[in-house]
Amino acid sequence: MSEYFKNIKKINFEGKDTTNPLAFRHYDPDRMILGKSMKDHLRFAACYWHNFRWPGADIFGDGTFNHEWLKASDPMEQARMKADAAFEFYTKLNVPYYCFHDTDIAPEGNSLKEYVNNFQTMVDVFEQKQVETGMKLLWGTANAFSNPRYMAGAATNPDPKVFAYAATQIFNAMNATHRLGGENYVLWGGREGYETLLNTDLRQEREQLGRLMQMVVEHKHKIGFKGAILIEPKPQEPTKHQYDYDTATVYGFLKQFGLENEIKVNIEANHATLAGHSFHHEVATATSLGLFGSIDANRGDAQLGWDTDQFPNSVEENTLVMYEILKAGGFTTGGFNFDARVRRPSTDLEDFFHGHIGGMDTMALALERAADMIENDVLSKNIAQRYASWNEDLGKRILGGDLNLEQLATLSVEKNISPVKESGRQEYLENIVNGFIYK
Amino acid sequence: MSEYFKNIKKINFEGKDTTNPLAFRHYDPDRMILGKSMKDHLRFAACYWHNFRWPGADIFGDGTFNHEWLKASDPMEQARMKADAAFEFYTKLNVPYYCFHDTDIAPEGNSLKEYVNNFQTMVDVFEQKQVETGMKLLWGTANAFSNPRYMAGAATNPDPKVFAYAATQIFNAMNATHRLGGENYVLWGGREGYETLLNTDLRQEREQLGRLMQMVVEHKHKIGFKGAILIEPKPQEPTKHQYDYDTATVYGFLKQFGLENEIKVNIEANHATLAGHSFHHEVATATSLGLFGSIDANRGDAQLGWDTDQFPNSVEENTLVMYEILKAGGFTTGGFNFDARVRRPSTDLEDFFHGHIGGMDTMALALERAADMIENDVLSKNIAQRYASWNEDLGKRILGGDLNLEQLATLSVEKNISPVKESGRQEYLENIVNGFIYK
Amino acid sequence: MSEYFKNIKKINFEGKDTTNPLAFRHYDPDRMILGKSMKDHLRFAACYWHNFRWPGADIFGDGTFNHEWLKASDPMEQARMKADAAFEFYTKLNVPYYCFHDTDIAPEGNSLKEYVNNFQTMVDVFEQKQVETGMKLLWGTANAFSNPRYMAGAATNPDPKVFAYAATQIFNAMNATHRLGGENYVLWGGREGYETLLNTDLRQEREQLGRLMQMVVEHKHKIGFKGAILIEPKPQEPTKHQYDYDTATVYGFLKQFGLENEIKVNIEANHATLAGHSFHHEVATATSLGLFGSIDANRGDAQLGWDTDQFPNSVEENTLVMYEILKAGGFTTGGFNFDARVRRPSTDLEDFFHGHIGGMDTMALALERAADMIENDVLSKNIAQRYASWNEDLGKRILGGDLNLEQLATLSVEKNISPVKESGRQEYLENIVNGFIYK
Amino acid sequence: MSEYFKNIKKINFEGKDTTNPLAFRHYDPDRMILGKSMKDHLRFAACYWHNFRWPGADIFGDGTFNHEWLKASDPMEQARMKADAAFEFYTKLNVPYYCFHDTDIAPEGNSLKEYVNNFQTMVDVFEQKQVETGMKLLWGTANAFSNPRYMAGAATNPDPKVFAYAATQIFNAMNATHRLGGENYVLWGGREGYETLLNTDLRQEREQLGRLMQMVVEHKHKIGFKGAILIEPKPQEPTKHQYDYDTATVYGFLKQFGLENEIKVNIEANHATLAGHSFHHEVATATSLGLFGSIDANRGDAQLGWDTDQFPNSVEENTLVMYEILKAGGFTTGGFNFDARVRRPSTDLEDFFHGHIGGMDTMALALERAADMIENDVLSKNIAQRYASWNEDLGKRILGGDLNLEQLATLSVEKNISPVKESGRQEYLENIVNGFIYK
Repeated sequence: MSEYFKNIKKINFEGKDTTNPLAFRHYDPDRMILGKSMKDHLRFAACYWHNFRWPGADIFGDGTFNHEWLKASDPMEQARMKADAAFEFYTKLNVPYYCFHDTDIAPEGNSLKEYVNNFQTMVDVFEQKQVETGMKLLWGTANAFSNPRYMAGAATNPDPKVFAYAATQIFNAMNATHRLGGENYVLWGGREGYETLLNTDLRQEREQLGRLMQMVVEHKHKIGFKGAILIEPKPQEPTKHQYDYDTATVYGFLKQFGLENEIKVNIEANHATLAGHSFHHEVATATSLGLFGSIDANRGDAQLGWDTDQFPNSVEENTLVMYEILKAGGFTTGGFNFDARVRRPSTDLEDFFHGHIGGMDTMALALERAADMIENDVLSKNIAQRYASWNEDLGKRILGGDLNLEQLATLSVEKNISPVKESGRQEYLENIVNGFIYK
Repeated sequence: MSEYFKNIKKINFEGKDTTNPLAFRHYDPDRMILGKSMKDHLRFAACYWHNFRWPGADIFGDGTFNHEWLKASDPMEQARMKADAAFEFYTKLNVPYYCFHDTDIAPEGNSLKEYVNNFQTMVDVFEQKQVETGMKLLWGTANAFSNPRYMAGAATNPDPKVFAYAATQIFNAMNATHRLGGENYVLWGGREGYETLLNTDLRQEREQLGRLMQMVVEHKHKIGFKGAILIEPKPQEPTKHQYDYDTATVYGFLKQFGLENEIKVNIEANHATLAGHSFHHEVATATSLGLFGSIDANRGDAQLGWDTDQFPNSVEENTLVMYEILKAGGFTTGGFNFDARVRRPSTDLEDFFHGHIGGMDTMALALERAADMIENDVLSKNIAQRYASWNEDLGKRILGGDLNLEQLATLSVEKNISPVKESGRQEYLENIVNGFIYK
Repeated sequence: MSEYFKNIKKINFEGKDTTNPLAFRHYDPDRMILGKSMKDHLRFAACYWHNFRWPGADIFGDGTFNHEWLKASDPMEQARMKADAAFEFYTKLNVPYYCFHDTDIAPEGNSLKEYVNNFQTMVDVFEQKQVETGMKLLWGTANAFSNPRYMAGAATNPDPKVFAYAATQIFNAMNATHRLGGENYVLWGGREGYETLLNTDLRQEREQLGRLMQMVVEHKHKIGFKGAILIEPKPQEPTKHQYDYDTATVYGFLKQFGLENEIKVNIEANHATLAGHSFHHEVATATSLGLFGSIDANRGDAQLGWDTDQFPNSVEENTLVMYEILKAGGFTTGGFNFDARVRRPSTDLEDFFHGHIGGMDTMALALERAADMIENDVLSKNIAQRYASWNEDLGKRILGGDLNLEQLATLSVEKNISPVKESGRQEYLENIVNGFIYK
Repeated sequence: MSEYFKNIKKINFEGKDTTNPLAFRHYDPDRMILGKSMKDHLRFAACYWHNFRWPGADIFGDGTFNHEWLKASDPMEQARMKADAAFEFYTKLNVPYYCFHDTDIAPEGNSLKEYVNNFQTMVDVFEQKQVETGMKLLWGTANAFSNPRYMAGAATNPDPKVFAYAATQIFNAMNATHRLGGENYVLWGGREGYETLLNTDLRQEREQLGRLMQMVVEHKHKIGFKGAILIEPKPQEPTKHQYDYDTATVYGFLKQFGLENEIKVNIEANHATLAGHSFHHEVATATSLGLFGSIDANRGDAQLGWDTDQFPNSVEENTLVMYEILKAGGFTTGGFNFDARVRRPSTDLEDFFHGHIGGMDTMALALERAADMIENDVLSKNIAQRYASWNEDLGKRILGGDLNLEQLATLSVEKNISPVKESGRQEYLENIVNGFIYK
């Protein structure tokens, strides 16, 4: 077995004063924070697709990377080489989890039967790799968007045969995830949307997607998979409009199909911003609706209108996200998966490490800052005080349903009520947060 | 009683070859289209706020209009002058409906009691005006966003007294709408959102908003109001994030509070585009979810990130919207309300007519083109054919729940299914649509 | 020689009532408009890259098209097959011009020498094809952005060898364009920008780009090329920021290097909107600065933040663009090149015709409407009248430089001037325009 | 004279561990950084308009603030009260500079003559205030955008009388700035743009604006004003499109009128992002073009499409900006003016201090981090190395003009050049920067 990352040793914590760019400055896996190790809080995963499958191409240019493991001409041999490279990388990166799509790890072949065989073979390989390395699977998923057959949707395709093809992939990917001890199963509907309303039946496609989700949930229970089923919202790209637009949209969808207690969300930072929301907003919305599952950690570019999938590097942004997650009790089955890739001109193998190290240090520092905020929780106290009168008489009667509109109006006019102005103190609170981040 | 629009006579249909800018070129109220008059299809309304209350100010500049009817120093006298101007304008514009906020038509006064008295007095005036002119009320609403007391929300305010104040306005505005024969009651939550998550309890605010909606629906039934209750989605502005972001978000909210059969949406073109959707998308989403109610007809500017509320002038855009509405059976209680305003430098009184005339001609032409599309419905036929195999065996078994995931996968692998590629024909369909618009 | 578009005959004008989707409804090449044929006004070109080189892939999915002409395993054989397909298509489409990048028509080979040889061979083929078909070249260009060597820029690369490589391609592409009778030479700097400011020297890169432009202009004069040199502005994508952001930015660049009389712009609709401008704005800016050269006719999607390169289908938008072009005297060397592609799911060969036919009919109709506006030029008359007082005493003295700031202020205070408000009449003018479009 | 900020004492540096929200945690005015005091590096200014003139209104709601100093009914008395409040605030805030518009400090009156008289009176007051408090004027400007007369532009108005009115204001504001020892004079063309191209002559308006700029520069020299003349770019808002769109656009404009050595830019963070650029980009572009003048320090909201003018609070963003400024030699006449305002619900007088304190601490910390980066300049070294070969033979010959296109191509083919791929190392560099920010 070849070594692909020859000059790179396992990445270790060396502290913030290190000058070694291939070391962690903040991510200290065993350091205890709020009674739990950093490793167990953050549950980092590195992904398969961006690191091992992507050749460094974009829509205007060819691949720049020239990876050794993509050079085998036989597809199954290439799959094994990719697996070798991946587990070497994961181990050296010192990351406990990984994530994959079915078609990342095995060639699709020329027919559904070939797909099934190839995939089974590679799942065996992965099972062995996990034993050898101790790596764990954060989540698995099926790629039902890249193959031309999915150009008009997978579950939402006008052709039920395409639905069936996708369902077969999902069946296999779920079973593999279960067998490999995966802690979640993710559904990202990259082509579950439309290119033009002129050829689309929105109601029909929604029914199809709803049925698929129900089948997935039934299958989960049937096989005894204990992990979470997660939908990953994204507003558009590749299609003009995707049905899993954002967390609020997913919530309505789940309610329609009675799935709001069965499926949660995998929130990606860059998908949040493409949907016109802050990353913080999407996480806070999910926790407030009881839908929070996992995170695809990355960042977009505030000036670009597509999914740039850059590594997270803002402690400021992620401290608020981390705070929200801690407030909600932290991850259960979820974790931070780096759905992120180095820039196309970052062509050294070291760059793949720099990207992840930067992302891991960013999240570790955000965790540390957020834990401080939790321990001395000025924000929560301020909020509790701000809404305190909803626990008093009038507030309770309104929310308790004691007063109908007429009774409330009559009572208000009789008392000629005149609410007192209270500052929202946004700037003060922003300063408080910065006080935790920069100390 | 003064005449405010002195040199302007009633606007009439003169046909597309007219050179009179103060005539309709396409809106011919009594012309029959698909068995119904244009007037009854379009149900045009002109609004009170942009035309009679707005002084022509923007955030960087003072009012440019200097309207005569805003010059009285006594607020109630001003309110009567505004009403005179408004009904003169509506009558001359030849528009059957109008819309208002409570605080557009009566001064708020210095206390809740004064508000109630002023409003009652002006509702009497409006009742009389309607009799005199034959004008009808498309919808009424309460302004619970302009007064400083609502700076942190109305129903979602941290102070239940503010909720009570808003509820009192809504109670009065609903009763007035009922008494004036209004056909809908609208809720736009301009401040129902947040400025910063740092001081906001999302779950709490959602409960408050849900309770208000339930109170409104209960009150509707209590007073026997037969019109529709409508929520108007908007993503942001004035707040950073509003809870009624878009139609899909409203759907989830309604499902949570069991209101999906009680409340529909009033879709505004410019709000759709600010939310990152096409106007067509929002209307199609609403009809597909059974939520379609009414339209605030206007347009945004594709390059500007705020609500410009310009008059609709794209027949291309509105033909598709009109087609969607006709396909769904047309308006029932809803209509096209021009929530639109002339540009700040359009300072002649004629400009207010030009804006509305342009908007009405645009929608009338869109109706004509869309009706043609309905009569010769290439798009629907194409869609029916595209999804036809969902009515065949495999499709029926999938949607009917006959197959679980394993069964479907097994069946697919056994048959080694291989779906056949079918073009989506988007460009062909776009040409078809243009063939209807430009003939 | 194979026929690739077997069931398709030459596209002809059949008039707006035709039901034949493979006919022009509005583009009647020989119809005279304002004393010139439609063909000579519009100067349509179809491009090489989207139609013959693109396999129907996007960043999330593989190619859907499976074109016959891309199946040859030998690169030069494939190049010849592509050329056969292209000229068959162009001829059947009835379009007088085409456009290409050097690497569209010939394989790059494994070295610069191979590139030169391959390209020369294929230029011979093209010369012959032009003779056989009567096709003309609207413009040629060099692709200095797809090859990995250009990942950090071509002229703006940190390595002068990359500059030299790009210069060699441009030298060859300019010479080929000249030999093939091309009417323009285009420079699109897809990678002339930055991914991150952290590794970029803006001043240095600007100098490099300026030097390249000067070399191009010098070479043009040296070889006696009479066509125009055109820069194609684009704000970003593929890079985070491109130096040719928009027309105004290009103007500043040209002024710095003394090239404002030597280089014009090739404006693309979708690039305009990505830059935060309307297409109309970019064309009007270019004509007002004397920089207008040619058009890449397409459209973007108002909800998507990347270059969708869809076919133009808005007569409303393009009538204003066409009006601006006619007002400026029409094209000289430029034309409308369809830098547009069918959607990925539009997998029938007919779809490539539908896309172009729709685009050509859209522009033809826009020409007809705009010509009408020119003949009865309400807008120009209105503008002349609006600014008329700049031709009177005070206006002339100000613009003529007769008055310094102090003199003008003194004069204004002495007269205590008080300007009179004049309406901008935007809605009236919008109605006028719609009156020309919909008659 | 009343005290308006009664419970607030002068804000002092107390260090990062202070729990006093009305103290600086990072801004220590006399601390030396790179041989200069923080105060002299940062040159903070607080503005007049947002703090003392704005009532807390937005386009959807009335003023929330109810400031004491806005309650006088006589306009000149109100102007004096505002001045008292302002200088009390500035002094307590411990900020060395302030900025104003002419119409912020004196009522416009009912005629040009009244304007001149009122303004002169108030400039006398300000001169006295400066003496009493030691406050200095960073810059003055004239408001030629709020009054209805400017609805269609000031210098770019179709009516030369409006140009003359604006010129008179500018004349007075420049003279006042000179007299008050102002260090810069700013031109922000809020209405120098268009609402619609349908009524606009772009070429004419550009000439008018160019002439005004020349008059301003001539007047500067005439009166011996030694400060800088600054244009403040903004892309849109209030108008649909403003001519001073961004720094690159301003550069082209200055080149056209021969003013590139006479006028610099005042860059606002929020204007940068509205123009589709990062704040860092605008500053780096200005320094690379030799146009950098001053900064309007604030931030926008990444999800909102209008000018929110929030206080800066990102050390991450501003460290890069500060680094760019330090690299270019720091401010000369410019400084950081807080063109920022508290949110509308921040209704306590303390909030005005919290906003500024947060902004000042953010910039102070950014200065400290950036100074560290300068002292140990990894980025500059990396850049120098990256472009090093431009100082070698081939690079020098290309940039020096020794080689024409043909010579360069010939030489390249002869050598069959093949550039070597070099990683751009973006992620590595981002980690380096974070290493400076978080230590």
